[in-house]
Amino acid sequence: MIEPKINGFKIFVIKVNSRGNWIFVELQAGVGLTGVGEASHGCGFSQASTKDDIIMRHQVERFYRFLEGESPFAVENFRRKAWKEATDAGLPAVTAFSGLEQAMCDLASKSSGVPIYELLGGKVRKKIPVYANINRAIEHRTPDGFAIKAEKAIREGFRSIKIAPFDDFPNLDCSPGEIEAALENGIARIEATRKAIGANVDLMVDCHSKFNRRLGTQVAQLLSGINLHWYEEPVAPEALEDTIEIHRAIPQRLAGGETLFGKEGFGPLCRQNAVDIIMPDVKHCGGIFETKKIALLAESHSIKVSPHNPSGPISMAASAQVASTLNNFEILEHAWGETDWRHHLIHPEEEFTNGILHLSDQPGLGCQLSQRILEQQLTQ
Amino acid sequence: MIEPKINGFKIFVIKVNSRGNWIFVELQAGVGLTGVGEASHGCGFSQASTKDDIIMRHQVERFYRFLEGESPFAVENFRRKAWKEATDAGLPAVTAFSGLEQAMCDLASKSSGVPIYELLGGKVRKKIPVYANINRAIEHRTPDGFAIKAEKAIREGFRSIKIAPFDDFPNLDCSPGEIEAALENGIARIEATRKAIGANVDLMVDCHSKFNRRLGTQVAQLLSGINLHWYEEPVAPEALEDTIEIHRAIPQRLAGGETLFGKEGFGPLCRQNAVDIIMPDVKHCGGIFETKKIALLAESHSIKVSPHNPSGPISMAASAQVASTLNNFEILEHAWGETDWRHHLIHPEEEFTNGILHLSDQPGLGCQLSQRILEQQLTQ
Repeated sequence: MIEPKINGFKIFVIKVNSRGNWIFVELQAGVGLTGVGEASHGCGFSQASTKDDIIMRHQVERFYRFLEGESPFAVENFRRKAWKEATDAGLPAVTAFSGLEQAMCDLASKSSGVPIYELLGGKVRKKIPVYANINRAIEHRTPDGFAIKAEKAIREGFRSIKIAPFDDFPNLDCSPGEIEAALENGIARIEATRKAIGANVDLMVDCHSKFNRRLGTQVAQLLSGINLHWYEEPVAPEALEDTIEIHRAIPQRLAGGETLFGKEGFGPLCRQNAVDIIMPDVKHCGGIFETKKIALLAESHSIKVSPHNPSGPISMAASAQVASTLNNFEILEHAWGETDWRHHLIHPEEEFTNGILHLSDQPGLGCQLSQRILEQQLTQ
Repeated sequence: MIEPKINGFKIFVIKVNSRGNWIFVELQAGVGLTGVGEASHGCGFSQASTKDDIIMRHQVERFYRFLEGESPFAVENFRRKAWKEATDAGLPAVTAFSGLEQAMCDLASKSSGVPIYELLGGKVRKKIPVYANINRAIEHRTPDGFAIKAEKAIREGFRSIKIAPFDDFPNLDCSPGEIEAALENGIARIEATRKAIGANVDLMVDCHSKFNRRLGTQVAQLLSGINLHWYEEPVAPEALEDTIEIHRAIPQRLAGGETLFGKEGFGPLCRQNAVDIIMPDVKHCGGIFETKKIALLAESHSIKVSPHNPSGPISMAASAQVASTLNNFEILEHAWGETDWRHHLIHPEEEFTNGILHLSDQPGLGCQLSQRILEQQLTQ
């Protein structure tokens, strides 16, 4: 085989909704060979803006220069050369790095005619359990608004539901009365969701780091009767001591780590056994090989892995490829109900059956972006 | 690509010398596609016996049954299915497992037309520093006998030398006088070697687990003037507390782990920072992917990796493939001077220049067994 050399790139920004666009990066290697990765949510998870898209274009260009003329297999070398620059530059930079790394993996494995999982030791499962994160689909953030979407996801076959019922939680320096009201509101949403899905469906609560140590502990204890499958990021995972203390004090399993970069970033959580489940995001953690490394580190501390993935179908495919090879994989996130066209955006189409994603055995990511839908949804 | 399926195997036992034979395992996947791995020293490092070869044939057959009909890429699956059986059955079993895993990697990457390092994230170096372990070449185990071989290795360009000067150390329950004499003898060998190679060549001492905590500490302290590059396995690495205490007490860097199996086996040494350098052996630790995993675990504890490799050219090629991808790789072992035909046993021939092995960019291991030399040296 003549080793392919990377010689170009493209960026596609796809309009999704007011919470954010999806950004795809394509790497080219001559003779029609391309690879794709997803670099969505590099400027955060809550709002789409044209400025964000410009920032991400700039970041992808910035990290592409490490790849021009290089082999798409040379992931370790890319890491060595670009790691420090990415580490020092925050979420947009690590997201660009991670999107490009996915595209390298897609390109490398397509050039070898094998799925990406074959570069990672081969799959240990074909069926990838997926949970419906309904948060991005909820229109009315009343308890009923949560319950309606949860019921709908269950009807579509999902057996695990995640919500983020505290997204409108006030700043912690507000009055005790406001805190109390926001807590009651959040808990009412959780109770309504549990009631809607019944006792036999797994329910996870993501707190999006809205709390401090005291409140994070208190909320978990208040929820002890609701049987959560896990309790996620009451505080930011960088707040290691708080995370450790909350973990010790609460009855639920604790999960977190969605924006951490690299095995170095996950090292403290793992070495301190600060969580039960780590949540690397293939779009922010360094990419596909890095997710494998992080999972191995976690495994040596008996920690499970549930990849964070509230974004588009390329991130889903990339996450599924690596998840299929992990011994300590638990379940993969899916941004359920966000658009009615996402499954058409790739071919073969993305398909979930009873909360299971069936892994493609096609080369690379196992799917291609559909040019037709891509062109319809391009922001420019 | 039609995914290859493993459909046969062969074992080659090659006569080397009285200290042991080399055993190669070949996996077949139809249409002339083969992969090879090395499973030498599965019954120990010090003596060749026909019985050992029979044991290893049996063990390779035992673990081959997990592979019949499987994809050579399915390393993680092989691990899942065969791991417990290998873990529970000692060095012959883990060596057979590891030899087969190397052969899977060779087969898988050859079927993709890429070197094995491309399955491991790509190489970060082409030049692999190698040290000459002269121990297996020494004829007269006098200080002069050590010095003569060390000088010869230096003349051939090696810049790092390892010796095992305590191999004839008596049982520790013998008389204090005998211990004293054996210590003096061992130290005289080290001093003679240092004198022969000068101050600017790295010198490592492997104690082959001959000591206990007290003696292991005492010997290292006696050697403090000799500037060792590392001090290796004064006690067995399974003796974790002893290893930790010796590590704390001595001035040299401590190395070890040559017979440990899997990242699970290396977990305690790494998590306790019990050594400075771990020494997974691609023939005993689980193979090529497992060496990568162990190295990642070590990296997260700031521990270096120097693969143990006192055996044949296939183990050398497999070790070099994985070493080329590691950030925390230090130097690779070479069983220097054991035969005068080993470099002919593979093509392209094995070649060291100034203590550097140049990594092949051919598919798979980057080399093939030479049928002609193989047939000359076959034991049967």
